[in-house]
Amino acid sequence: MQGTADAKKAMISPLAPKTTPDIAPVAGVTLAAASAQVRYTGRTDVMLARIAPGSSIAGVFTRSATRSAPVLWCQQALAQTGGVVPDGQPLAIIVNSGNANAFTGRAGEDSVQALATATAGALGTMEAAVYQASTGVIGERLPHAKIEAVLDGLTDALSPDAWHEAAAAIMTTDTFAKLASATAQIGGKTVTISGFAKGSGMIAPDMATMLGFVFTDAAIAPAALQTLLHESTGQSFNAITVDSDTSTSDTVLLAATGQAGNVQITDANDPAAAEFRAALDSVTRDLAHQIVRDGEGATKFIEIGVSGAESDSAARVIALAIANSPLVKTAFAGEDPNWGRIVMAVGKAGEAADRDRLTIRFGDILVAENGWVAETYREEDGATYMKGAELAVTVDVGVGQGRSTVWTCDLTHRYIEINADYRS
Amino acid sequence: MQGTADAKKAMISPLAPKTTPDIAPVAGVTLAAASAQVRYTGRTDVMLARIAPGSSIAGVFTRSATRSAPVLWCQQALAQTGGVVPDGQPLAIIVNSGNANAFTGRAGEDSVQALATATAGALGTMEAAVYQASTGVIGERLPHAKIEAVLDGLTDALSPDAWHEAAAAIMTTDTFAKLASATAQIGGKTVTISGFAKGSGMIAPDMATMLGFVFTDAAIAPAALQTLLHESTGQSFNAITVDSDTSTSDTVLLAATGQAGNVQITDANDPAAAEFRAALDSVTRDLAHQIVRDGEGATKFIEIGVSGAESDSAARVIALAIANSPLVKTAFAGEDPNWGRIVMAVGKAGEAADRDRLTIRFGDILVAENGWVAETYREEDGATYMKGAELAVTVDVGVGQGRSTVWTCDLTHRYIEINADYRS
Repeated sequence: MQGTADAKKAMISPLAPKTTPDIAPVAGVTLAAASAQVRYTGRTDVMLARIAPGSSIAGVFTRSATRSAPVLWCQQALAQTGGVVPDGQPLAIIVNSGNANAFTGRAGEDSVQALATATAGALGTMEAAVYQASTGVIGERLPHAKIEAVLDGLTDALSPDAWHEAAAAIMTTDTFAKLASATAQIGGKTVTISGFAKGSGMIAPDMATMLGFVFTDAAIAPAALQTLLHESTGQSFNAITVDSDTSTSDTVLLAATGQAGNVQITDANDPAAAEFRAALDSVTRDLAHQIVRDGEGATKFIEIGVSGAESDSAARVIALAIANSPLVKTAFAGEDPNWGRIVMAVGKAGEAADRDRLTIRFGDILVAENGWVAETYREEDGATYMKGAELAVTVDVGVGQGRSTVWTCDLTHRYIEINADYRS
Repeated sequence: MQGTADAKKAMISPLAPKTTPDIAPVAGVTLAAASAQVRYTGRTDVMLARIAPGSSIAGVFTRSATRSAPVLWCQQALAQTGGVVPDGQPLAIIVNSGNANAFTGRAGEDSVQALATATAGALGTMEAAVYQASTGVIGERLPHAKIEAVLDGLTDALSPDAWHEAAAAIMTTDTFAKLASATAQIGGKTVTISGFAKGSGMIAPDMATMLGFVFTDAAIAPAALQTLLHESTGQSFNAITVDSDTSTSDTVLLAATGQAGNVQITDANDPAAAEFRAALDSVTRDLAHQIVRDGEGATKFIEIGVSGAESDSAARVIALAIANSPLVKTAFAGEDPNWGRIVMAVGKAGEAADRDRLTIRFGDILVAENGWVAETYREEDGATYMKGAELAVTVDVGVGQGRSTVWTCDLTHRYIEINADYRS
């Protein structure tokens, strides 16, 4: 099996971006990566980010009832500080791969406390300024002393350019590092947004979870930053699904240093923030798409667009019902233009839909309308379309104006291999 | 591929019952099967049941928003008649396999109307006494004339003993016919309950759906019969999941002829009905378990019991979250005692759970308690347990008294083969 495992590691997703993106530095943000051998050897597994004093931070987290200790720590830190740190102290984000520190009881709390103390000491800040995330195996104690042992080295190595190193250190079953960058204007000042993420199954306890870390030099007050992150997550990280499973550890953080010198945004709906909002959306969506493209076993990247629902949230429910249906996902894997399964998934979503006004398209191909297969539809056209690696399915359910778009991948033998045949 | 298709047909699920059950006749019920070649050749594909005048009927149907024409017909007939037929006319149930008559627009309505007229004519009853179900491919017109052409032959062949023939005629991808039978006492009279079902995926539009038809000679008024069926379905057909997908056509009917001569039950909560209720539950649960045992690609039959939830319905949501999780199902397929995935699934269910009071057992093996792996747990024990074909997972979420049990199967390569590699 060792040969197989090596072969797996070497295999980069066929849907991976063809080129590695250039990532612009963000004034006030420095990063470093190290090898602490938490679980993996021969690679980095800890990432430290230092965010300059005067910054704001916002976070969006898993809603799992079995949230990991680091998630609970971050939520508590945000609640306690309001996303700012007083007295010229920096913010920190420390992340390890290999161990999720989830379902570890009291030991898990001890580990996050120990790491907060050690990181705060190394960077000269308060404990509640230290945000943490862990991803990897569930139910095993985090050997936090191994991470503490590399903290001085990480602090010494902090660099404004270590984006790819940071992104690589947080990978688990990811087959490629995921980064994105954009710029926008706020009141005539150019601001930069750069970030990275990891994830390949929504979760796989030995392996994966979804983490995203985004940084900007824009000046944005914490409450506005939280709103912007929340809304941006809705059209990116919360609009993707690989296997419908939700991690105990999903975490997205957005830090804003203010060093671009724009007049501070205090209201997310300020027109001056519109271009920033669009750029942030492009970065989070790019990262989210990369996670789908690295979906376990994925061979197709699929956009599911739903319109005509009673509300946007109803449309989201229907879109996710389609995207999560094993029968829909296996049909994509088999390159089968099986629109009957789309009808089934719309039906099971539990939201209003008019069976007799349902319209389904594969790309530009009209497949079904008015509750029946379209007269112009030819099965050969659908079959040819399905051979592509990038697919779009659009469904209008004919009852209202609600719309939503989500992204997913197909369900293949490789997913079963990775998740059934792996651990033994 | 033809050789492969033949091999598929010949392969009976490894979880199938070892023996074919004896099915007791039900006074007042006669059955027949015929080959109408709706889609299949070389096998039967239409089943007719005649239920004597004076009977009651109840039904439970899919909640899909894209319900098939026969489902809508049955719901309308039940609403119109209240589950009884006046003037000494019989009830009828006519079912075909091979074509679901779903998503067929106006043509679908024309087909159910035509079949109602023809069947009512053949049996000398009113159209609203004719219940219908269709299972098979979606989106193709039902060639109802083919079914009409065999109606006279079906009527002539009606027999009190044709249970296995009826059960076989409604199979699609099922690898074995599913029947069950039981008796009970009502006020000193022995009553019989016999029935049959089909299903192997929750749905697969080219193939499967869940249908169940149960008959008794007990005398039970329609409203009480509806309540009894509804409640019995909750612990049987609605407590199973193969792949989380819901058919456009799921239908369960329960007919009561009253020929056993008991004093009529008019209240489902009548103590005199207690034994009947238990026997009905055993029949519906047996049929439901057989559907799971015939789950597409299934190699494990898995009971998921959840206790300690805020309510029984919260426990059901958590149990289904576990049973439907692709990561949990693939772990079972891989015989991997991956309790971390159970923790994840509990967390994502969206119901209250106390992470630090969570208890997990595989069979009698205590795996986790108080938010962490149990001190006594040895991974070897879990791995040995997982090699069995009949598995039980029990989870206590530590917040209340709610409990629920559901049944599912594992997610294997064979599921992908059946659903991704089949049509092309």
